[in-house]
Amino acid sequence: MEHRNETVAIVGAGDYIGAEIAKKFAAEGYTIVAGRRNGEKLTPLVEQIEAAGGRIFARSQDAREPNDVTAFLNEADALAPLALTVFNVGANVNFPILETTDRVFRKVWEMACFAGFVTGRESARLMLARGKGKIFFTGATASRRGGKGYAAFASAKFGLKAVAEAMARELWPQHIHVAHLTIDAGVDTAWVRQIIKDRGGPDDPQGLIPPEAIADAYWELFCQPETAWTFEKEIRPYGETW
Amino acid sequence: MEHRNETVAIVGAGDYIGAEIAKKFAAEGYTIVAGRRNGEKLTPLVEQIEAAGGRIFARSQDAREPNDVTAFLNEADALAPLALTVFNVGANVNFPILETTDRVFRKVWEMACFAGFVTGRESARLMLARGKGKIFFTGATASRRGGKGYAAFASAKFGLKAVAEAMARELWPQHIHVAHLTIDAGVDTAWVRQIIKDRGGPDDPQGLIPPEAIADAYWELFCQPETAWTFEKEIRPYGETW
Amino acid sequence: MEHRNETVAIVGAGDYIGAEIAKKFAAEGYTIVAGRRNGEKLTPLVEQIEAAGGRIFARSQDAREPNDVTAFLNEADALAPLALTVFNVGANVNFPILETTDRVFRKVWEMACFAGFVTGRESARLMLARGKGKIFFTGATASRRGGKGYAAFASAKFGLKAVAEAMARELWPQHIHVAHLTIDAGVDTAWVRQIIKDRGGPDDPQGLIPPEAIADAYWELFCQPETAWTFEKEIRPYGETW
Amino acid sequence: MEHRNETVAIVGAGDYIGAEIAKKFAAEGYTIVAGRRNGEKLTPLVEQIEAAGGRIFARSQDAREPNDVTAFLNEADALAPLALTVFNVGANVNFPILETTDRVFRKVWEMACFAGFVTGRESARLMLARGKGKIFFTGATASRRGGKGYAAFASAKFGLKAVAEAMARELWPQHIHVAHLTIDAGVDTAWVRQIIKDRGGPDDPQGLIPPEAIADAYWELFCQPETAWTFEKEIRPYGETW
Repeated sequence: MEHRNETVAIVGAGDYIGAEIAKKFAAEGYTIVAGRRNGEKLTPLVEQIEAAGGRIFARSQDAREPNDVTAFLNEADALAPLALTVFNVGANVNFPILETTDRVFRKVWEMACFAGFVTGRESARLMLARGKGKIFFTGATASRRGGKGYAAFASAKFGLKAVAEAMARELWPQHIHVAHLTIDAGVDTAWVRQIIKDRGGPDDPQGLIPPEAIADAYWELFCQPETAWTFEKEIRPYGETW
Repeated sequence: MEHRNETVAIVGAGDYIGAEIAKKFAAEGYTIVAGRRNGEKLTPLVEQIEAAGGRIFARSQDAREPNDVTAFLNEADALAPLALTVFNVGANVNFPILETTDRVFRKVWEMACFAGFVTGRESARLMLARGKGKIFFTGATASRRGGKGYAAFASAKFGLKAVAEAMARELWPQHIHVAHLTIDAGVDTAWVRQIIKDRGGPDDPQGLIPPEAIADAYWELFCQPETAWTFEKEIRPYGETW
Repeated sequence: MEHRNETVAIVGAGDYIGAEIAKKFAAEGYTIVAGRRNGEKLTPLVEQIEAAGGRIFARSQDAREPNDVTAFLNEADALAPLALTVFNVGANVNFPILETTDRVFRKVWEMACFAGFVTGRESARLMLARGKGKIFFTGATASRRGGKGYAAFASAKFGLKAVAEAMARELWPQHIHVAHLTIDAGVDTAWVRQIIKDRGGPDDPQGLIPPEAIADAYWELFCQPETAWTFEKEIRPYGETW
Repeated sequence: MEHRNETVAIVGAGDYIGAEIAKKFAAEGYTIVAGRRNGEKLTPLVEQIEAAGGRIFARSQDAREPNDVTAFLNEADALAPLALTVFNVGANVNFPILETTDRVFRKVWEMACFAGFVTGRESARLMLARGKGKIFFTGATASRRGGKGYAAFASAKFGLKAVAEAMARELWPQHIHVAHLTIDAGVDTAWVRQIIKDRGGPDDPQGLIPPEAIADAYWELFCQPETAWTFEKEIRPYGETW
């Protein structure tokens, strides 16, 4: 593996999407700086990537704390120029409107929208200084549709998409690629499989997106030349209705 | 004027849109309960509506405080059954992304989105108890488009629209009309006229929406039979580009 | 009834939506010029409107023939200035893609899109000459969504919406109101009721839009001041999912 | 070069986008079957691809003639299984509504929409027989927006997108990938450069999409696994406003 002197920061590096993005970009030679609430949970990922010859730094972070996010991104950029930031914090909840508490609504927004705004802005600050970089946001079905029970989650995801759009319109002309990847289906995780099973579904459900495919979709966005950038890209499995 | 035993609550009853909505529905016999940050500023409106034979109660409220909003709506519903709540709090700001502070982003969201969520939820709680009512949200160009410099405002407005959508999908089948009125142009206010003038524009600018027309648009939504409800309605002047 | 010296032309004046629009505008004093494939079928409507003191002229027309449409609109405008044209020709079909013949695809387009374009253009020609007028197009769920089996119908309806949009952007600044009313549900007609019944549904199905409500929705668009026009307005019943 | 026993059919293989798609997929080992109005104009492309060791068959075709399209696709599939069809016929015109003739409106639709429908349907017929294949449609800014003067072109492009959507919803579950690539900017062609120059623009304009980048975008869609397909993908250059 040829190492590149550039970092990829992942805010919200969970066990599935975040981990696969980390593995993909590490395999391409980028130094990964991965953050999640409890950074210790990243240990298996670190071991796996390092065993494969890649480079990764794992950090505990509270994405809702601007100081945490800023320090995290600054550290990534100090290691080597920050080539890409992926914002991947999720907060999928579903409650009837009367049971959606102020606390839930605020917390979901802080995780899925406010943290994304701060991540985007602080990445832009570092990238504008050198006139290049990429900032990608993970979207969901709820980025497009305010479904029943999704007042909190869709509100945060719509809000995140607006942040991405406003940043794209401001930063693209300054050679910074801002994009939004809408994952319009369930992701194949232990958690989603359990929910399906709990609802009486099969042990081996179809129609879930493999996290590896999401990492590949991000890699494609990353490789686009600036003469043909995508802002919004959606992915879903062949059998998914929409 | 024939008085009806129903109230119309306006959260964010400013000098223009809110005031015209109040006058329109008061003239139709509804008892208005109008709230704004500094309720004393509503005195001229109260005098005008009462002089015309209408009924109105003015209240100071901090729309960002759930307890304030809840008390305000409960009071409205205690006076007479709450027929309609209009959420009309604005927070239009424009900053480059690097100059959009955490504080601004959060405050704009609290005013334009979180307050709308609480207003919607608490109105729904009162209306569901009697199986009828209407909840309308004021949207803007930024509800549709994350324009350059609008990371904060568009994020909040997109988020508000998602709240409206999720509530509509849940509450329409329970006979509660949730709608979103997108005002896709500048509104004819002293503030907007001053901005236009400051930018070298004419003293009598064209292309602004009169607040009275917005009140009429709300009245039309209010009068729709439940067999033909509108969720999203946009208005703009004839000369506006879009 | 006070008669106004203005006409309302309806292209595609069927038994339900078209007939109700005719009755509504006739009752408001407008002279109706109604066209449909077989104009003799309009006889009951003519009798009903005339009995109520209204004015209406019924014509046979093939909306797919530009000469027919042009003559029809010219005649309407010669009777009295053309205040409004409503394009209301439908062509709802559903076929698997392999069974959608060239002939069906072309015919559906000629009825639902090409005829609308000609109707819009020729109305615009008459209205531009006096600097006022309104042109409304009836849309459907298929104006927004290319559903399974709807390659022909959705293609025509998407195409019609594009015509309306392009005309609106060109003609609004010239004081001509172009609008698109999306009827996002089944309409309560004998034909739809029969389909529902044939599929094992109830005799008295819920969730259909009454044609009268559509006429009222058009009336509201017609009454809008030019300082607050709507381009796109959607209506659906309270129980409809979307 | 390793040859694959599969064909890629290009309907509307012009000098720029179509030619680059041909070169890209030929270089990947696919046998190209390229059609355009005047097939002789494909001679330089054929020579270039064959010189590089690729395989290509050039055909004259009138995409508006279903029999032509059907024969063309059948021939491609007879050479080797049809892996991909790209529909790339353009018809960009801009006229004020009053100057948009019936003939222009119909011809633009026949080229940009009807031909696409037939191409899609006949490709689907061949692909459904073996349960795999891909059908991609080229979109434009006018696929999203009915701009002033674009009644004809936008109507056709909206209509084409509806065809793509309806086919995707029907065919994805049968393992056929239907996608729509929106090219939301000018393409770098001699024709576009001349227009820019004629309008007083620079000899070396910025902000045009290179045809090669479009071919790469199609290649990426082609490589997606069926667990993470994209239906709609947009590309535009970094400096483009939208």
